[in-house]
Amino acid sequence: MKPLVSIIMGSLSDMPVMEEAIDFLKKMEVPIEVRALSAHRTPDLVATYAKEAAERGVQVIIAGAGGAAHLPGIIAAHTCLPVIGVPIRSAQSLAGLDSVLSILQMPSGIPVATMAINGARNAAIYAVQILALADNELAEKLKDFRKSMAKKVEDADASIE
Amino acid sequence: MKPLVSIIMGSLSDMPVMEEAIDFLKKMEVPIEVRALSAHRTPDLVATYAKEAAERGVQVIIAGAGGAAHLPGIIAAHTCLPVIGVPIRSAQSLAGLDSVLSILQMPSGIPVATMAINGARNAAIYAVQILALADNELAEKLKDFRKSMAKKVEDADASIE
Amino acid sequence: MKPLVSIIMGSLSDMPVMEEAIDFLKKMEVPIEVRALSAHRTPDLVATYAKEAAERGVQVIIAGAGGAAHLPGIIAAHTCLPVIGVPIRSAQSLAGLDSVLSILQMPSGIPVATMAINGARNAAIYAVQILALADNELAEKLKDFRKSMAKKVEDADASIE
Amino acid sequence: MKPLVSIIMGSLSDMPVMEEAIDFLKKMEVPIEVRALSAHRTPDLVATYAKEAAERGVQVIIAGAGGAAHLPGIIAAHTCLPVIGVPIRSAQSLAGLDSVLSILQMPSGIPVATMAINGARNAAIYAVQILALADNELAEKLKDFRKSMAKKVEDADASIE
Amino acid sequence: MKPLVSIIMGSLSDMPVMEEAIDFLKKMEVPIEVRALSAHRTPDLVATYAKEAAERGVQVIIAGAGGAAHLPGIIAAHTCLPVIGVPIRSAQSLAGLDSVLSILQMPSGIPVATMAINGARNAAIYAVQILALADNELAEKLKDFRKSMAKKVEDADASIE
Amino acid sequence: MKPLVSIIMGSLSDMPVMEEAIDFLKKMEVPIEVRALSAHRTPDLVATYAKEAAERGVQVIIAGAGGAAHLPGIIAAHTCLPVIGVPIRSAQSLAGLDSVLSILQMPSGIPVATMAINGARNAAIYAVQILALADNELAEKLKDFRKSMAKKVEDADASIE
Amino acid sequence: MKPLVSIIMGSLSDMPVMEEAIDFLKKMEVPIEVRALSAHRTPDLVATYAKEAAERGVQVIIAGAGGAAHLPGIIAAHTCLPVIGVPIRSAQSLAGLDSVLSILQMPSGIPVATMAINGARNAAIYAVQILALADNELAEKLKDFRKSMAKKVEDADASIE
Amino acid sequence: MKPLVSIIMGSLSDMPVMEEAIDFLKKMEVPIEVRALSAHRTPDLVATYAKEAAERGVQVIIAGAGGAAHLPGIIAAHTCLPVIGVPIRSAQSLAGLDSVLSILQMPSGIPVATMAINGARNAAIYAVQILALADNELAEKLKDFRKSMAKKVEDADASIE
Repeated sequence: MKPLVSIIMGSLSDMPVMEEAIDFLKKMEVPIEVRALSAHRTPDLVATYAKEAAERGVQVIIAGAGGAAHLPGIIAAHTCLPVIGVPIRSAQSLAGLDSVLSILQMPSGIPVATMAINGARNAAIYAVQILALADNELAEKLKDFRKSMAKKVEDADASIE
Repeated sequence: MKPLVSIIMGSLSDMPVMEEAIDFLKKMEVPIEVRALSAHRTPDLVATYAKEAAERGVQVIIAGAGGAAHLPGIIAAHTCLPVIGVPIRSAQSLAGLDSVLSILQMPSGIPVATMAINGARNAAIYAVQILALADNELAEKLKDFRKSMAKKVEDADASIE
Repeated sequence: MKPLVSIIMGSLSDMPVMEEAIDFLKKMEVPIEVRALSAHRTPDLVATYAKEAAERGVQVIIAGAGGAAHLPGIIAAHTCLPVIGVPIRSAQSLAGLDSVLSILQMPSGIPVATMAINGARNAAIYAVQILALADNELAEKLKDFRKSMAKKVEDADASIE
Repeated sequence: MKPLVSIIMGSLSDMPVMEEAIDFLKKMEVPIEVRALSAHRTPDLVATYAKEAAERGVQVIIAGAGGAAHLPGIIAAHTCLPVIGVPIRSAQSLAGLDSVLSILQMPSGIPVATMAINGARNAAIYAVQILALADNELAEKLKDFRKSMAKKVEDADASIE
Repeated sequence: MKPLVSIIMGSLSDMPVMEEAIDFLKKMEVPIEVRALSAHRTPDLVATYAKEAAERGVQVIIAGAGGAAHLPGIIAAHTCLPVIGVPIRSAQSLAGLDSVLSILQMPSGIPVATMAINGARNAAIYAVQILALADNELAEKLKDFRKSMAKKVEDADASIE
Repeated sequence: MKPLVSIIMGSLSDMPVMEEAIDFLKKMEVPIEVRALSAHRTPDLVATYAKEAAERGVQVIIAGAGGAAHLPGIIAAHTCLPVIGVPIRSAQSLAGLDSVLSILQMPSGIPVATMAINGARNAAIYAVQILALADNELAEKLKDFRKSMAKKVEDADASIE
Repeated sequence: MKPLVSIIMGSLSDMPVMEEAIDFLKKMEVPIEVRALSAHRTPDLVATYAKEAAERGVQVIIAGAGGAAHLPGIIAAHTCLPVIGVPIRSAQSLAGLDSVLSILQMPSGIPVATMAINGARNAAIYAVQILALADNELAEKLKDFRKSMAKKVEDADASIE
Repeated sequence: MKPLVSIIMGSLSDMPVMEEAIDFLKKMEVPIEVRALSAHRTPDLVATYAKEAAERGVQVIIAGAGGAAHLPGIIAAHTCLPVIGVPIRSAQSLAGLDSVLSILQMPSGIPVATMAINGARNAAIYAVQILALADNELAEKLKDFRKSMAKKVEDADASIE
């Protein structure tokens, strides 16, 4: 089945964070592909990956990276698909702030949708929100997910006393 | 004509920044609506606005706010539509960083796509990227826009000597 | 007995921090209620909670939240009661600074009284300081608490040699 | 008439910021006193001021200061009245962040309610919220103020097209 | 023997850091006194302590504190003796930066000599540098200490291969 | 004459900063080329530029960019030549810190030599330091430049009284 | 007359800030010398300057510098005299924070007394506080200065209504 | 064999970080020397070291330091060789940001090439990139290293499914 969402990370070491995106999309039964390519070590592979994503049927790209996180922005430079960037807090980073700013402060013309630090799950939810605009079944699943979240909060609240 | 993109700002004083989003969407001939409501001074109006956006035909919401910028997150709490947040640098802010963090660091479950500080134009471009997934004509316009940007860079580069 | 202080947190995971507020208010024999509601996952419940707080007899609200901490500000938007905000340092936060700025930098018109990071106990003390304005017995307890704190410092100082 | 709110600032140079608090309290017809004393240049005057505030009938103290802003915390150390701190952005400050942290990060036992940078008006509103707990007339004024704020937002929103 | 250097900390919990100052001064045979008083919980004791320090023969005061670290500045406000401030990194602090700024950014007129985060040992060395201006014997000890430090570096360097 | 140093900037608007590099290299009679290409708007041109730089005889690349400054890192990804990055403070940036972190925090394997904010002149000097390793004449010029700098400092020092 | 305090700055462009130190010391009739030497452009001159300061009769050194402000630390490395560092906010600096950290975070063994950003006047006051330990006349002047400061505050306070 | 690259650190405690530079250069068979000298505890040794480096045949200096990291800048002040600075995150540092700014923000005239926090390996790679300009064999090794890095990424990517 053709992937609708492509998840890419700068290094396999980002997998523990990015797995939350994979898990959510699988739960929502959205077909995905998962890649690990470096904007700096394999720049041509990244360019090719980004240029061909739309042709492969991909509609949304989720890109996670740490440190000087160029991956989401470089992918956005090579495609017109919406790119969602996930800043990843790595060992030598400044608590993830370096990664946030490297993804967020894109120049006018080439936007990246930045998520919270390590916010891979929210990236997946956002991808589903985009896809749901044209997919009523998915829209229903999203609403159910929202309700179940609210229900959990209510249950926790009720459990206090 | 029904608006596809709704632009909302926390205060009319944010208009000089948000106008860049309005201008881009008009140029792309995307029907829009523009609102100025405060998440703190008019919370019920904001909730109603957000809850009814999808019914009005809105597909993407762009929300700009400064300081403790709660508007994008609160709107995202009331709708399943994709919300794009624009952190606005205001006079008493910490160079916009307070606004960035208030929009970016959303909890798991309710994402907001954060743009660069004062990045209203990129918010509009991102909205078009989302809409273009289901609108070939718009997708063409987007590609033309990309090409014209690249052309301008090439021309500037060529002008150096 | 009607609660005079309402303690609310964005998630049950904030309980270890917020418990310090609960403990202090119990020690001071101030009747309280404790809730866990999310400004983003259950926005309508939060709005209703805030709107009805005054009618329930609540005089002060203590709201704790982490990350993009909108809970205190959104509650303040729905009530005229004084709201005390507690920034909570969570795992993915920027050492709590994101939470501080999201609570502190409220726009003109809707103030929130921000406490130190994880300062739930101080929030409770501040609530007692407000209640003590109209409750002489509580004012006496507060003075005794102050004296016992000073006494502990003096004892520690005396213990040095 | 006895002052209910005491406004104090670290230096007369803080007056342009603190005037917003004075104006709001005058508008709400709350009797006030205004002082300018330095926690560092006149520490004994500040201690005396704080110790005697309650006896003078003061119920809430608003203290504004910039840089290493010790004034609010030192006043809180000498009184059980609720103290509201206003971080003031001064010429040599780090955009006001130094002042925020000096006021916010108070140790357990002695809270200060910190407002936004230069948030003197919100400090005054918060003082009124406290006083209104025991003053129905003031509570009504506060509600009217809230409504007029909301009305202004609605008018601005309506003015867009 | 009369203390020449007075070491004070905001809480006994600061002792593990401040002990480095005590150890260095003992090694240099400088008579000291050690106190633990809170600028916020025992403000009058701190004022009295500072006002009487010079009379007790104290020539330099070393004050360590964390969070909103007012202790060094408040002591400086009550004495003309040189005060050395040590910012202490505490559990809820912003990596010590809050403490640095609370000590460093003193207003014109009342200086505090700020040391590195947790730099209690350097505070002691600086105190000795001041005392050595009028004490040739101590000046010799200081030079010896400097030489032994350099020697250790040279030895470490020589040990590499 | 073949360029030894290639100066590239993300946008012509960076020219006022980058001109200092151009001027210094001209003064040192180092042959240069100057380009203005965007890593995001013209990614393929940047890749080609970087890949072919060595063949053109370029030995050092100086790349200046602001905001999410990906240009230096992306160029470094496509060449083995030493790349010197100049963080540029732009209007919407966080005082240039976003640009610093985007250039500095490169992943292991692909280094960029980061200069001070707006430090284009130092980038040019550093390029000359590299080239001078294999060019005695240039090494002499560099020493003369150093001496003239020192002379200016001495003259300024002598001018004080 | 032999200088007791030596004022040094990294560049003549720092003079507008450092003049406040000169003015205060002149007012207190403390003999001074003033130098402008760069730790980076004239490192040997700085080393010689620092090594010979004590022999010239200097008792305290005030060193101001901006950016990567190494001057105070390097001087401290070459002398046992107390060094007071003044972080100077320069055009390309990060609001002076870079300069603060470069001066403050000295390693164990070689302390520098850091003042507030642009706090040259406080550096001079601190120098006087040190000198006054052995100079009763100066100690009296210092007390008078303190009293006149307090008097000005009282007058300003009295002028409010 | 004469060292081409000199690796120096401010303290032997920096060795765990700097070892990565040593390892890479050994792997590339570049002759090195390794030193541990403090810019503050042994300033004359550092000056002599830097002044004589070129005569010893050294072509590139890698200097690592934490806190107020003056070592790279001071070395650069004493030599015309390219200096690469490695900011080291130490226990009392501000996540390494203090070290970054102390190295990065060098004044005009004396550049230091700053690497990522703890980026010793990249410093070594950058040194090789400089040396490879005049050493074809080393240039080949560098290309092979680049290819093997890319290969590892490709293998990791291929391993995902």
